[in-house]
Amino acid sequence: MAAFKISFLPTPPEFARLRVVLVSTRNPLNIGAAARAMSNFGFLHLRVVNPYAVAFRRARSAVGASAVLTAAEEFSSVAEAVADCTLVVGTTAVGHRELQHPLRGLKEGASLMRKQLRTERVALLFGSEKFGLSNADLSHCHWLMHIPTREEHISMNLGQAVAVCMYELARSAKTVARPEKLKRAKAAEVERFTTLLMEALHASGYVKPKTAAGTEEKVRRLVRRLTLPQRDAEMWLGIARQIAWKLRQPEP
Amino acid sequence: MAAFKISFLPTPPEFARLRVVLVSTRNPLNIGAAARAMSNFGFLHLRVVNPYAVAFRRARSAVGASAVLTAAEEFSSVAEAVADCTLVVGTTAVGHRELQHPLRGLKEGASLMRKQLRTERVALLFGSEKFGLSNADLSHCHWLMHIPTREEHISMNLGQAVAVCMYELARSAKTVARPEKLKRAKAAEVERFTTLLMEALHASGYVKPKTAAGTEEKVRRLVRRLTLPQRDAEMWLGIARQIAWKLRQPEP
Repeated sequence: MAAFKISFLPTPPEFARLRVVLVSTRNPLNIGAAARAMSNFGFLHLRVVNPYAVAFRRARSAVGASAVLTAAEEFSSVAEAVADCTLVVGTTAVGHRELQHPLRGLKEGASLMRKQLRTERVALLFGSEKFGLSNADLSHCHWLMHIPTREEHISMNLGQAVAVCMYELARSAKTVARPEKLKRAKAAEVERFTTLLMEALHASGYVKPKTAAGTEEKVRRLVRRLTLPQRDAEMWLGIARQIAWKLRQPEP
Repeated sequence: MAAFKISFLPTPPEFARLRVVLVSTRNPLNIGAAARAMSNFGFLHLRVVNPYAVAFRRARSAVGASAVLTAAEEFSSVAEAVADCTLVVGTTAVGHRELQHPLRGLKEGASLMRKQLRTERVALLFGSEKFGLSNADLSHCHWLMHIPTREEHISMNLGQAVAVCMYELARSAKTVARPEKLKRAKAAEVERFTTLLMEALHASGYVKPKTAAGTEEKVRRLVRRLTLPQRDAEMWLGIARQIAWKLRQPEP
C-alpha cells in the first residue's frame, strides 16, 4: 500500500531579503516564538530593537535556542534596524487609533512585500505586546498592515501574529502540489465484493425470500455509493470472504 | 489627511459549525493560545480530549480566561469529541511517518472544510505538543492536513499552528472547492458501524489475537476512507448488526 507523500515549502532567494523587526518586545518567550515561526516558513533574519535586554540575551544563548534566535541582530533604534531596507512596513491591530498611514490587509500587503523582495530588502515591524508600535516607530513606516480579525477580538498574541504573517508571505510564493486522490476500485472488484456481501446477507437471514431481488439491487447501489478505494479493495474482499465463509459453516 | 479605515472580518454562520479539538495537550498555556487565535478569527467552539486536567481546569477558570476557553467542552475520548461531526480532519507535521490517509495542504484542505461547514459540523484535530496525533487518534480522521513548512524545520508551535489554520479558514471564505456530492454520515454512526464490523471480524476469525490492536486501527481507517453516506448509514448499520448477530450464535 502506498503512503501519501508530502511536499515541503521551497525557500526562494527573496525570502532572505526580509527583516522581521521586533520593537520593544517585553517577553523573551515571544521573541523565541516569533523566531520559531520565521524558521518554519523560511524567513531567517530577525532583528530586535530595545528588547528587555537581560532576558533576551539569556533566551538567545540558551541551549535549544533556534538558529534564527541565536543569529538575531540587536539595535537600539528603529532607524538603525531598518536602515538597509527600502520598504518598511508596520503591523497594527488598529483598534480605535486614528491612522495617518495607508493601511492594507495582510493578503494585499504580503503580495506587495513579496514583489519588493524580489530585488530589495524589506522590513516588517511588530510592536510591543501591550502597546504595539508607537507613533515614533510608525513614522519610519511606508505603510501599515493588519491581520483581519473579528471586531470583538482584534488583539492577537505576538507570536501568533508573526506566524500568520510569515505563513501568508510564504503562502503564494509556492506552487501547491496536487494531493493524491484516492483511486477508485475497478468495477470487477466492486462486484466481487457485492457478491460476497450478498452471500453473507443470505446466510445471515438479512435477505427475505419475497424481496430478495429488490434487496440485491439495493445492496448493489449501496456499495457503489461507497466509492470503495482501489488501495483498500483487497482488504475489503478479504473481510467479506472471511465473513461469508464463516456464515456458510453448517448449522448444528 | 484623512484617517484610514479598517474593515473587520465577518463571521459567517458556518464558522459556528467548526469544532477545534485539542487532543492530549500537555501545556494549558497552549490551550489558552489556541482559544485566543480561534476567537481572533471567529471560531468559538473548542473541545479538549484528555488535557492535563488540573492545570487545564485552573486555566479555564482563571480571571481573564477568554470566552472560548471558558466554554471549552471536555471529553475523555476522540470518538466522543467528534461524534456529532460529519467530517473529521487531523493535522500533522508529517515528519518521516508513513501516512495511511489522504494528505492535503492547508490551502486546499481549508477550502474543502469551508465547503462542508456550510451544512455540516466539521472537527479539526490537533495532537499533543510532543507527539502530535497518535495512530489511534488518526484512525478517526477522514483525511489529514498539513501546514507547508521548510523541510529543515517542520515542527510548529501548537498555538501558532492553530492560529495559521484559523487564519486560512477565515481567509478562504470565498474560494470555491470541489463539492462533496453525498452528505457524509456522522462520526458516531461511522464508529457504530466500525464497532459492529469489528465484532463480526472477531467472530469470523478474521482478527488474529496477536495483531488485534493493529487490525482495529486498520479497520477504522478503512471505514473512514469509504465516506459512508448519511442516507445509507442506517442500512449499513442494519447489515452489520444482522451479520454480527448471526456470527455470535453459539457453535454446535
